[in-house]
Amino acid sequence: MSDVFDLACDLIARPSVTPDDAGCQELVARRLRGAGFGCEHLRFGEVDNLWATHGTGDPVLVLLGHTDVVPPGPPEAWASDPFRPEVRGEMLHGRGAADMKGSVAAFVVALERFVAQHPDHAGTIALLLTSDEEGDAIDGVRRVARVLHERGQRIDWCITGEPSSTAVLGDLLRVGRRGSLSATLEVRGVQGHVAYPDKARNPVHAALPALAELVARRWDDGFESFPPTSLQVSNASAGTGAGNVIPGRMQVLFNLRYNPHWTAEKLEAEVEAMFERHGLDFELSWHRSGEPFFTPEGPLRAAAREVLATFAGAMPEESTGGGTSDARFIAPLGAQCIEIGPVNASIHKIDEHVRVADLEALSDLYLALIERLLP
Amino acid sequence: MSDVFDLACDLIARPSVTPDDAGCQELVARRLRGAGFGCEHLRFGEVDNLWATHGTGDPVLVLLGHTDVVPPGPPEAWASDPFRPEVRGEMLHGRGAADMKGSVAAFVVALERFVAQHPDHAGTIALLLTSDEEGDAIDGVRRVARVLHERGQRIDWCITGEPSSTAVLGDLLRVGRRGSLSATLEVRGVQGHVAYPDKARNPVHAALPALAELVARRWDDGFESFPPTSLQVSNASAGTGAGNVIPGRMQVLFNLRYNPHWTAEKLEAEVEAMFERHGLDFELSWHRSGEPFFTPEGPLRAAAREVLATFAGAMPEESTGGGTSDARFIAPLGAQCIEIGPVNASIHKIDEHVRVADLEALSDLYLALIERLLP
Repeated sequence: MSDVFDLACDLIARPSVTPDDAGCQELVARRLRGAGFGCEHLRFGEVDNLWATHGTGDPVLVLLGHTDVVPPGPPEAWASDPFRPEVRGEMLHGRGAADMKGSVAAFVVALERFVAQHPDHAGTIALLLTSDEEGDAIDGVRRVARVLHERGQRIDWCITGEPSSTAVLGDLLRVGRRGSLSATLEVRGVQGHVAYPDKARNPVHAALPALAELVARRWDDGFESFPPTSLQVSNASAGTGAGNVIPGRMQVLFNLRYNPHWTAEKLEAEVEAMFERHGLDFELSWHRSGEPFFTPEGPLRAAAREVLATFAGAMPEESTGGGTSDARFIAPLGAQCIEIGPVNASIHKIDEHVRVADLEALSDLYLALIERLLP
Repeated sequence: MSDVFDLACDLIARPSVTPDDAGCQELVARRLRGAGFGCEHLRFGEVDNLWATHGTGDPVLVLLGHTDVVPPGPPEAWASDPFRPEVRGEMLHGRGAADMKGSVAAFVVALERFVAQHPDHAGTIALLLTSDEEGDAIDGVRRVARVLHERGQRIDWCITGEPSSTAVLGDLLRVGRRGSLSATLEVRGVQGHVAYPDKARNPVHAALPALAELVARRWDDGFESFPPTSLQVSNASAGTGAGNVIPGRMQVLFNLRYNPHWTAEKLEAEVEAMFERHGLDFELSWHRSGEPFFTPEGPLRAAAREVLATFAGAMPEESTGGGTSDARFIAPLGAQCIEIGPVNASIHKIDEHVRVADLEALSDLYLALIERLLP
């Protein structure tokens, strides 16, 4: 087995359920220090972050990843202990194998090889790891990005190791992500008895036409390769359970996944104006969990596309689909961001796994891309 | 103090919270047996019912009441123990004073005086009491009405002692009540992740246009002296609390208060057709808690109006407002129903009370009405 495989196993064996890093970053830092990297541990609250750099000046290329994993669920549901890496057939099993300790191991080995072969490479190569990508994402990359911004740290390119491939390694290049914006709507009414509606004001009745308009709205027709912006109600509640009481308030939670046609500010203003227009007595609180990012055609996408094609045997799909990733915190620093990682079919599931052969290949892929970008 | 007052106090002192009769009906039966009534105790489940009659044949006049009371809430919130009758100023205080142990006491004394003065009165005079008017109302008058129906017991007129007066005793004559129909709507969708709405089907989004139409509908413009039929949503729920999950189902409870323009069957069919029209994947379960009843102009209303006017000093308002009462179970037997009782301002509240002077007056009022109807 390869160097990447061994490191991936060492990382999987550490039960680093969010936000516990469980020693993963110290393991990585030890190796990178040995390769000549400067390593800085940035711990905020319960969250560990690692910022490791080699070289100086521009351009700056950052590899971005996380050492935390989602909980395994009941271990007895797994074919083998989720925190004991095990090879069965062509696959290495364990929580985090695909999301994303395999990518982290591939990053580290690629970086070691790159600086060994190119000790005087152009610009700066860096690795940023957090232990809070799967959780609140408050004290992780969001926080580190603020620190980097305050230091005036420029970032030109960022490659996130999120598992992006769909069938074979390198078949998809993620070039953007939608933004995510959540709202809690509270509609106020006046509680009363259902037999005397004139003495009450039903917040459900007041909210229904506004909500019907909200979910019927077509926000846009998409943006470049992004799907249309979409809104989904996730929760709705009103009433005490009693069948003869008009409720005094209604609460509705909804989430918008939006493309770069919008900003959070613009969406919030639109939605609030709609509720105002319906004359609702309401309160809206917003949670911005990530602006969208998008990397248009340019040197980064071109280099990545060509490298991926040599590994996948065909040009990759260039996509902006999926959820959110920590790249959303790096993009606002002015960085072009892409995501490249292993096949994602098993992530967050029981018996998560990664193809053993893909671990070494992924490291080679990262190395080839780094060599193109920092010649 | 009067005979009615004493009996009212004896009843209030029995803590007969639904469905516990706490000996009230036995007390009443003892007195009526002494006056020559035949008394039948009909106990179903935890519920006590009393059916007491005097005389034979037509016409049949039933006085209808209940011995149960709603819970007092925290006793320390009361100025005096809710189950220790206490006079302060002009008022007798205690749980049930107005709803409706005062009326029950007035019924009993009126019946005693009536049969004493008119031992050979026309037709049949009866008293029907239950201990489950404030609760589920399953084993109370609803059940007794079925028994009476099976026996072929005819009822011409029914006077319910519910507290109907608004400012002074006798200022309102209730001549009908709206029906009440409750529904539990379950809308089925397909659960999923908010980032991938194409792979899910949001039941909230599906339901909103149908619900908006449902609550906007004007069902009718009223019926005789009834207010328009109204629908109120009492409860709505969807979602697990998680903000990134499209819920798999939505539940909505609503209630219709309807006038005799409608039957429960017709309303159910209308609502179901509306949901079908919207293409919802839904399940509706209905609970019919009472058909409406209405007593049109005739000998009963005329007699009651004139008697009330002599007590209130002015013609009473004839109303079909308010919630439901046990008269809804008697009306379907073919009986004309009216409701006459004390001032209702304090019912179901802390420090419930009834005017002491109204207790004796109410008994006189019932006696005068009985004498007119069974000369």
